[in-house]
Amino acid sequence: MKLLAVGTVAFDAIETPFGKTDKTLGGAATYIGLAASVMEASVGLVSVVGGDFPQEELDMMLRKNINIDGIEIIPNGKTFFWSGKYHSDLNVRDTVSTELNVLENFDPKIPEKAQEAEVLLLGNLHPAVQMSVLNKMKNRPKLVILDTMNFWMKHTWDLLLDIISKIDIICINDEEARQLSGEYSLVKAAQKIRKMGPNFVIIKKGEHGALLFDKNQIFAIPALPLEDVFDPTGAGDSFAGGFAAYLAKTQDYSFENMKTALMMGSAIASFTVEKFGTERLANISETMLKERIQEFKKLTAFEVKL
Amino acid sequence: MKLLAVGTVAFDAIETPFGKTDKTLGGAATYIGLAASVMEASVGLVSVVGGDFPQEELDMMLRKNINIDGIEIIPNGKTFFWSGKYHSDLNVRDTVSTELNVLENFDPKIPEKAQEAEVLLLGNLHPAVQMSVLNKMKNRPKLVILDTMNFWMKHTWDLLLDIISKIDIICINDEEARQLSGEYSLVKAAQKIRKMGPNFVIIKKGEHGALLFDKNQIFAIPALPLEDVFDPTGAGDSFAGGFAAYLAKTQDYSFENMKTALMMGSAIASFTVEKFGTERLANISETMLKERIQEFKKLTAFEVKL
Repeated sequence: MKLLAVGTVAFDAIETPFGKTDKTLGGAATYIGLAASVMEASVGLVSVVGGDFPQEELDMMLRKNINIDGIEIIPNGKTFFWSGKYHSDLNVRDTVSTELNVLENFDPKIPEKAQEAEVLLLGNLHPAVQMSVLNKMKNRPKLVILDTMNFWMKHTWDLLLDIISKIDIICINDEEARQLSGEYSLVKAAQKIRKMGPNFVIIKKGEHGALLFDKNQIFAIPALPLEDVFDPTGAGDSFAGGFAAYLAKTQDYSFENMKTALMMGSAIASFTVEKFGTERLANISETMLKERIQEFKKLTAFEVKL
Repeated sequence: MKLLAVGTVAFDAIETPFGKTDKTLGGAATYIGLAASVMEASVGLVSVVGGDFPQEELDMMLRKNINIDGIEIIPNGKTFFWSGKYHSDLNVRDTVSTELNVLENFDPKIPEKAQEAEVLLLGNLHPAVQMSVLNKMKNRPKLVILDTMNFWMKHTWDLLLDIISKIDIICINDEEARQLSGEYSLVKAAQKIRKMGPNFVIIKKGEHGALLFDKNQIFAIPALPLEDVFDPTGAGDSFAGGFAAYLAKTQDYSFENMKTALMMGSAIASFTVEKFGTERLANISETMLKERIQEFKKLTAFEVKL
C-alpha cells in the first residue's frame, strides 16, 4: 500500500438545481479511494461505518483494488449521514442536516499493512482524529497531506494548529486560506501558513482551479471549463485524492512532480462534478483519463518565443 | 502601424485601500498604447482630449513610439475625467464621478497611415463610436478585437449587438459574459456569444486569469499571483493591449498564437496593478518583461508522463 487515507465513508443526500438524490454513497475517504483507484495507485482507507452500510459498496471498493481493512464496521451503529442543498450558482451550499452517528466516537485503527504507506492523506475530519492517525503510524510517512475546512477553524482552532504544525502539505480553499492566515493576498496567506508548519500550501479555488506554493515557487492549474456542472460534492476530495495518489505512485515528492500531481487531481475532480455523487468517478476508464489529461495539456500549454 | 486602437485618453482620480491619486493619466487607449509599447509593437491611437491635456503626456507617448496622429485635441474642450473608489478586496469599485467632456461628441478621425493597420482594437467606448471607427477603415483589418463592459449592455443593447456581429474577437469579463448570453456556464456562454458574431471569445476573470474559446478549443491563462495588488485600474485595458499588440507584431492570428498573446496580455496586466495608474506600465524594461514571461512559464508548465 503506497497511499493511506483517513476520512469519512458516508451516506449523502444531495439537492442541486439539476435534481436530488436520496441516501447515496459519499464521504471524503470514498472519493479519495475512488480517485486513487482511477489512478491505479495502491490505496488503503481508514474509516468507520455502521451496520447499515451496504456490503455491495464495500464489494465495489474491493473490486477497485481499494484496501478496506482499515474500515471498521460497528454492527449496531449507524453510518455518518450528511445532506446538503446547492444554490443556483453551485458555489454556495447549505448543510441541511448532519448525523455524526458512528463518527462521534471514531477511534481510527491502522492495519499492519498500512504502516508501509509512504504517503498519508488526512482527509477532512476532526483535527484530533487526524492527529491520532498520524501518532499511530509506527514510522512517519514520507509525505503527510492534510485536507481541512473552515468548520474546524471555527470550533477546534488550537487542535487544528497542532496538526498543521506536523504536516508537509495543507490543502484548503481560498476563503479558508484567508481566514487561517488573516491575509487577503493569497501569496501572503500561503507564506504565513507555511510558517505554521507545512512546506507546501495548496489553495483550491473551485471553478478557478488551484495554486501550489512552496518557499519560492508558485504553480497554477485551472479547472477544466465544463458545459454542465451537475454536483460539486466530492470535487475537493477527488482533487486531493488524485493529487496524493499520483505522488504515492511516482514516489517523487519534488515541486516539479507536484505540478503534474495537481493536474491529475484537477482532471479527476473534473469527472466527479459531471454526475451526482460518486456515479461518474466509479466509472472512468484508462482511455477516458488519458483523453482528459490531453485536454488539460491543450488547456494550459503555450509557446514562448522571445 | 500594425495595431490601431481607439479608446479614451483621460484623467483618472483613484482611491484604493492603499492610497489615492489626484488627476492622473488614464484611459483605455493610454493603457493599450503603453502595453503595445512595452511589447515594442508599432501602435497608433485614435482618441480625443481637451486643451487642458498636458503636452508632456503627449511627448511621453511619442518617446515611447506611440503614434498619436489620431488623438484629436479640442483646444476649448476639457479632457474626459473618471474617478473611482475601490473596496477593500479590490474586486469591487464604485464610480465616484464621470465627466464625459470632449468624449460626448467624439467623432473619431482615422489618419491616413492608420489605414494600414492589420489589427484594430476597439477599446471600451460607446458601441456607436466603435462602429464608426470600423466603418471608416478603407479596408477591413485582418483582425478586429472588441473590448466592452456591462454599462453598454444596459444602455445601448442593440448598438452593442450590431458591433459584436462585425468583429473577430470579443473581450469581456465573466459576469458580462453571463449577462450577454443569459448562460451561467462560461462554456455555454462563450458558444452563445460566438453565435452573435465573433469567432473567438476571451473571458476575463481578474485575479483568476482569463479563458479563450473558439469553436472547439479552450485555453486558460492564470493571472500571476501577486503579493500586493495596488490599483487594478487599467488591468483589463493593458491585458487587451498586450494581447492585441503581440498578435499585430507576429501577424499570426491562429488559436495557438493567441495562447501566447494571452500570456503576454496577462504578463503586462500583472505589471499595471503593482502601482497607481500608468506609473508601472510606463517604466518596464525589456529585461523585466522577459523575466515575467519566464515566471508565467514556470507558473503554468507541467510534465505529462503517461
